[in-house]
Amino acid sequence: AGNRGPLSRQVRAAAGGERVSVLKTPKVKAGSGAAPVGTGCSPALSPLTAALCLGQGTRDHPPAQAALRDRLLSAVVSCFKRHGAAAIDTPVLELRETLMGKYGEDTKLIYELQDQGGELLALRYDLTVPFARYLAMNKITNMKRYHVAKVYRRDNPATTRGRYREFYQCDFDIAGQFDPMIPDAECLKIVHEILSDLQLGDFVIKVNDRRILNGVFAVCGVPENKFIPACSTVDKLDKVPWEEVRSEMVGEKGLSPEAADRIGEYVQLHGGLDLIEQLLQDPKLSQNKLAKEGLEDMKLLFEYLTLFGITGKISFDLSLARGLDYYTGVIFEAVLLHQENEHVEEPVSVGSVAGGGRYDGLVGMFDPKGRKVPCVGVSIGIERIFSILEQRLEASGEKLRTTETQVLVATPQKHLLAARLKLISELWDAGIKAEMLYKKDPKLLKQLQYCEDTGIPLAAIVGEQELADGVVKLRDVATREEVDIPREKLVDEIRRRLEP
Amino acid sequence: AGNRGPLSRQVRAAAGGERVSVLKTPKVKAGSGAAPVGTGCSPALSPLTAALCLGQGTRDHPPAQAALRDRLLSAVVSCFKRHGAAAIDTPVLELRETLMGKYGEDTKLIYELQDQGGELLALRYDLTVPFARYLAMNKITNMKRYHVAKVYRRDNPATTRGRYREFYQCDFDIAGQFDPMIPDAECLKIVHEILSDLQLGDFVIKVNDRRILNGVFAVCGVPENKFIPACSTVDKLDKVPWEEVRSEMVGEKGLSPEAADRIGEYVQLHGGLDLIEQLLQDPKLSQNKLAKEGLEDMKLLFEYLTLFGITGKISFDLSLARGLDYYTGVIFEAVLLHQENEHVEEPVSVGSVAGGGRYDGLVGMFDPKGRKVPCVGVSIGIERIFSILEQRLEASGEKLRTTETQVLVATPQKHLLAARLKLISELWDAGIKAEMLYKKDPKLLKQLQYCEDTGIPLAAIVGEQELADGVVKLRDVATREEVDIPREKLVDEIRRRLEP
Repeated sequence: AGNRGPLSRQVRAAAGGERVSVLKTPKVKAGSGAAPVGTGCSPALSPLTAALCLGQGTRDHPPAQAALRDRLLSAVVSCFKRHGAAAIDTPVLELRETLMGKYGEDTKLIYELQDQGGELLALRYDLTVPFARYLAMNKITNMKRYHVAKVYRRDNPATTRGRYREFYQCDFDIAGQFDPMIPDAECLKIVHEILSDLQLGDFVIKVNDRRILNGVFAVCGVPENKFIPACSTVDKLDKVPWEEVRSEMVGEKGLSPEAADRIGEYVQLHGGLDLIEQLLQDPKLSQNKLAKEGLEDMKLLFEYLTLFGITGKISFDLSLARGLDYYTGVIFEAVLLHQENEHVEEPVSVGSVAGGGRYDGLVGMFDPKGRKVPCVGVSIGIERIFSILEQRLEASGEKLRTTETQVLVATPQKHLLAARLKLISELWDAGIKAEMLYKKDPKLLKQLQYCEDTGIPLAAIVGEQELADGVVKLRDVATREEVDIPREKLVDEIRRRLEP
Repeated sequence: AGNRGPLSRQVRAAAGGERVSVLKTPKVKAGSGAAPVGTGCSPALSPLTAALCLGQGTRDHPPAQAALRDRLLSAVVSCFKRHGAAAIDTPVLELRETLMGKYGEDTKLIYELQDQGGELLALRYDLTVPFARYLAMNKITNMKRYHVAKVYRRDNPATTRGRYREFYQCDFDIAGQFDPMIPDAECLKIVHEILSDLQLGDFVIKVNDRRILNGVFAVCGVPENKFIPACSTVDKLDKVPWEEVRSEMVGEKGLSPEAADRIGEYVQLHGGLDLIEQLLQDPKLSQNKLAKEGLEDMKLLFEYLTLFGITGKISFDLSLARGLDYYTGVIFEAVLLHQENEHVEEPVSVGSVAGGGRYDGLVGMFDPKGRKVPCVGVSIGIERIFSILEQRLEASGEKLRTTETQVLVATPQKHLLAARLKLISELWDAGIKAEMLYKKDPKLLKQLQYCEDTGIPLAAIVGEQELADGVVKLRDVATREEVDIPREKLVDEIRRRLEP
């Protein structure tokens, strides 16, 4: 997708005026910053320090992480805004009842609060169910929204793989009755833009449709009440070989060996428009109404994706099933093929970094009359992307700036605190990002060292001579060049120097 | 403080390139947008719709509110960054033990979670205790950080006055051993900048020092174990007259009438440097070591605030006590005097919109060896400010734009969906914020109406003639002027038109 304006603009804004990639610059040398943070309690800690622990699977984000996360979230939000979405916010606390019966067996992972005098509350599990509740409650039938916020799952944390009990979700959804596949295509375009912009390396977006999958089950002789278990077994095909999936189908799920073999012939297929055409000619599948609808929509989707110029990264993959029960149409999932700079022979999947699909029935579950609002949405797996960027940053030895300070106000002699306070106040009032050391008489060397440690590009130095001359000595920290600037021209000169 | 660069820059960035105040523009006509949202369950609702409710004292933020909130938070964060603070993030869930014994009798307002297999968790009550826990846990002795996030209190919601059970806090804190009053003065400067930038009307920042207050109690004959109850009674002086405060002191708190009268002489005083000088000469108070330290620091603080040019809005007020137990030195609270456009004879206080102070003992409570890290911080009362801005917006009948879309891609005839998809894809890839209607053949009038309803400034129209000529008709929605632009120059022309 090449250079996209808003991402770089967004990141530039987040970084305080400099045009930078999410990762590369501005940077300061490693080793100068806040300490890294433990991720939980060691059992050896004394009772005295017990309150120093964090809950399992939760973590603090020290400044370096918070800065990286902010830039990442900004880039994602920037893309969502580019596509015309409005923000909404919903409470972290939902009534327990709102969340029940939406997540299948994962319902056990919901965090429940103690009884608040008759109110049974729980922490939200995702952003999709609250969005559906919001639409139904306000009788909204047409909306394009994004929501970036934390969700909570009492899952077994796997912190090394970026799996936590408290984590961010970044969701974009389009609700409303529209002509088929136009919003669905936009969701895929969004995934493509974000993964391209973040330069995460090569990726593929797998696409399927629940209707096609259900059609396959039907024509292979699976009874309808076994569609969902069959679906969740197929979903494992990206991790285990077909033989294992087949034996689970026949063993645990009770499918006949013949049905399993027939399913196997379909779900191992993947391709593009050619495969869609081939399946539309398939004597069995083309007779199934649902499958035919799904295939025709898939063809339309590919037509739109061709106009968007992104079919190169799209794979129609019949093994894609997605875990959640509420999908009703198109489903998709983006996987990174390998990490940049890893020279591997065969591209290896490092897991899903985005996913989503169409859920036309969820809003109706919240409406007293069951009125449906068709929805399609995408969720960006920001935590996994964050882990990848963090590891990459660590490997590079670079360190992101955690502040945006442009100028340090410094003095070279003693008894000049008043001069510093006066000057820094002028800079703040002019909108310049400025700091000074909180000491009455700091050594000049210490002040300059602070600039180098924290990446401050300029120092504004006022000594007795400068005060007498009505000037300020402006020092470029990197080049060590110093120039006297008339006091009244200082703000303009700082702005000029910091222009991108 | 006049025009401050970063606020307007920040708001401009948030508004997508246009230079605007937080409130005034860009706007669209009222009445065209998402429905307002109820704030809880009506008891008359049927069981079927029960899951459509929200927890008590929580609320959704529909797009118009979310957009206003985003701009407000951006303005506050922009000020925190201007002062060189780094962001951190801590979990919403803390161990219950971390929060116990920090909030006095308000501990009962903490939301507790159900037992998570041995882990007792609670929702954070503020951002200060988690910050102290973070510093102690990571042995950090020196840090300037901001944190903007939601906190939770099982309080009686008073939603009309902007009091909710889930609400945002915006905190800026400076931790470390420094020369006296330099960081404290910066916190007051920050309050002054934010309240000035947001144009909330006239305000005053009351300042006091816990050491002065304790000195007053001591010289008035209050026994030391009654300092805290006396303090919480004095704190009510901004709401009730002295007579009532006095009778609570003597009645409920068991102070002698003479002590109460002597306290009354002090705590009704307020002023500036002159009052500090007067109290430093006070024969009783000047003999009290703590009070003398407090007064000398207060004098130093006023010296620094004079250099910052903000003493006009500062009042040294001996009745200011602040509720929380953990303050150890300077305390402050900003109150709005009246709302803009309300023509009242006497300025009336509409309540606190910011507060903070010095808490030198809190971090030590988390350190196994009790090592102290002195801290001073400020919390901006964003919810109350948000309520004020929201009411003002409502009264004006204006409506904030909830999206940042710059261009609607439209077609004037049927069978041109492919042309729209191709063009919008080009715009997205060039970083232009663009939308189109999700219909195959929408009417041109409907497309232009959508621009007017949602405030989109430009429409890029491709019809059969434009396709044949290799141009796009660019329409200014406000003026209705249309110009044919060669396709390859369209992106540049859109950028040029949207320049601030």
